[in-house]
Amino acid sequence: MRRSCLALAMLLCIVTWSSSLAADPAPASKPKFRTAQQIIDAAPASAWRDLDPADTLYLELASGRVIIELAPQFAPQHVANIRTLAHDHWFDGLSINRAQDDFVVQWGDPDAGEKDARPLAPAKDHLPAEFSVDVAGLHFHALADSDGYAPRVGFVDGFPAGMDPATGKAWLAHCYGTVGAGRDMAADSSTGAELYVVIGQAPRQLDLNITTVGRVVKGMELLSVLPRGSGPLGFYEKPGQRVPIKSIRLASEVPAAERTPLQVLRTDTPTWDAQVEARRNRRDDWYLRPAGHIDLCNVPIPVRAPPKAK
Amino acid sequence: MRRSCLALAMLLCIVTWSSSLAADPAPASKPKFRTAQQIIDAAPASAWRDLDPADTLYLELASGRVIIELAPQFAPQHVANIRTLAHDHWFDGLSINRAQDDFVVQWGDPDAGEKDARPLAPAKDHLPAEFSVDVAGLHFHALADSDGYAPRVGFVDGFPAGMDPATGKAWLAHCYGTVGAGRDMAADSSTGAELYVVIGQAPRQLDLNITTVGRVVKGMELLSVLPRGSGPLGFYEKPGQRVPIKSIRLASEVPAAERTPLQVLRTDTPTWDAQVEARRNRRDDWYLRPAGHIDLCNVPIPVRAPPKAK
Repeated sequence: MRRSCLALAMLLCIVTWSSSLAADPAPASKPKFRTAQQIIDAAPASAWRDLDPADTLYLELASGRVIIELAPQFAPQHVANIRTLAHDHWFDGLSINRAQDDFVVQWGDPDAGEKDARPLAPAKDHLPAEFSVDVAGLHFHALADSDGYAPRVGFVDGFPAGMDPATGKAWLAHCYGTVGAGRDMAADSSTGAELYVVIGQAPRQLDLNITTVGRVVKGMELLSVLPRGSGPLGFYEKPGQRVPIKSIRLASEVPAAERTPLQVLRTDTPTWDAQVEARRNRRDDWYLRPAGHIDLCNVPIPVRAPPKAK
Repeated sequence: MRRSCLALAMLLCIVTWSSSLAADPAPASKPKFRTAQQIIDAAPASAWRDLDPADTLYLELASGRVIIELAPQFAPQHVANIRTLAHDHWFDGLSINRAQDDFVVQWGDPDAGEKDARPLAPAKDHLPAEFSVDVAGLHFHALADSDGYAPRVGFVDGFPAGMDPATGKAWLAHCYGTVGAGRDMAADSSTGAELYVVIGQAPRQLDLNITTVGRVVKGMELLSVLPRGSGPLGFYEKPGQRVPIKSIRLASEVPAAERTPLQVLRTDTPTWDAQVEARRNRRDDWYLRPAGHIDLCNVPIPVRAPPKAK
């Protein structure tokens, strides 16, 4: 059964890439090795945290729900503005206007800046740039691995982050799924009304050049498959090509029965460190050579439905 | 005109990401800086090379043509086998069977290993693993930047590559668009009949663990938008979900009138080094902080239609 065999091989290869995969039993000859998935499956309840509905956005598309965790610890004023916009139903009926291959999808008001533009009020139309914050106020859990773009990298409350001990600053890094606030030429020209999500190779050169506001925790596959726009920068050339946004709501403002309960693996526990190490040095039978390294943006952050009460 | 302004800002931000964008004139106050696109636009003809039809595969889908450059310098026996399979029309009528978000799409015979499997002959059904080659036989053009996965990185004839001076070995790295040969548990179980393409964050942990055979040089956006499979590892669960392959042909075996003439920017010239530096340290007005670094897999390799003879 070559097909099953191949599937198994690729399972071993990829088992740590998807939290939805069943664990693969380790062969008896290597009793001490556990895959990342096995470590995650065996994690205590305390290794997980519930997503806070007040920090969770639901982006509703015809194809389903994209779930974004907001990062007020990195961009408090932008996140506050996005909360206001969502509360005000400001995004509803707007559209995804851009999909650039190996880079970003982006949504907002296609008429922004023109006479038909949707007014932002009561949200603010001007905010300071929030490119970085003082690391002193954060719980920064370091990753031991080197990084070309930042002196140090790690995780802050579930967000991949860069940090510079020389400046004392930290920032939410541009990885797959990172959500940022599009801006104009001026550093302080973003409001959170125009948002983008990374759908390709981590564009880390954007770090410290733009305000990042959160991360897609579930539903990336609804954004990553959108047809790429044929205009410059992947903008859709015809209005009919834009992807309608049914609504963007804070989970806390959606009736409880309509929410998607979700838990995210904590990024500051022994479970976390152990599963990162299992990805850094994969020792299952498929791998001949453990990498000995993992890049910040190669560490997926598992989510799950909360286990049913017993 | 906020919209135009935003588009301009993002153009400046992204201008180096797409070879199809018009160059943005540098402001007079910074006369010495040229964007990567400006450098590419001003490149001499010698900075470009024609894609060799004998090393070029056309993967024909209903949505269009995906163009793959084969890398015989990294995997001579696999590439020879793939050439035989293409010559024999072996792939025609098969399908893309897997699309895993942020990882790979993969195609081949969905019945491989079963009684309805398509026989590989006259192609070989067994090949040695070709995970790396002697760097001594390659033209390795180094990238100055550090890398977490390899002691050194650079480019070989248009392919991103890792290299280890201690072993004298080099390998084609797993970046966005890299094509590899799926294998079973045994290192020497790939034949080139099952191929995958990276559609997400570079899975560099696969380097030196599997045979890589080439790179998609044009048409990635036809693969990256495929609906993700809902089965384990992103396999499509129903045969009707698979994406049919009309044909895979060597360009050299396609009538000249049906070919897509293409030039690829050489990766070993002063033009190349200059445009890499312009991406490593972006100094246009949009950027407040040049990154001072570029990852191997963040360097796109521009292609163009050959200029018309004057």
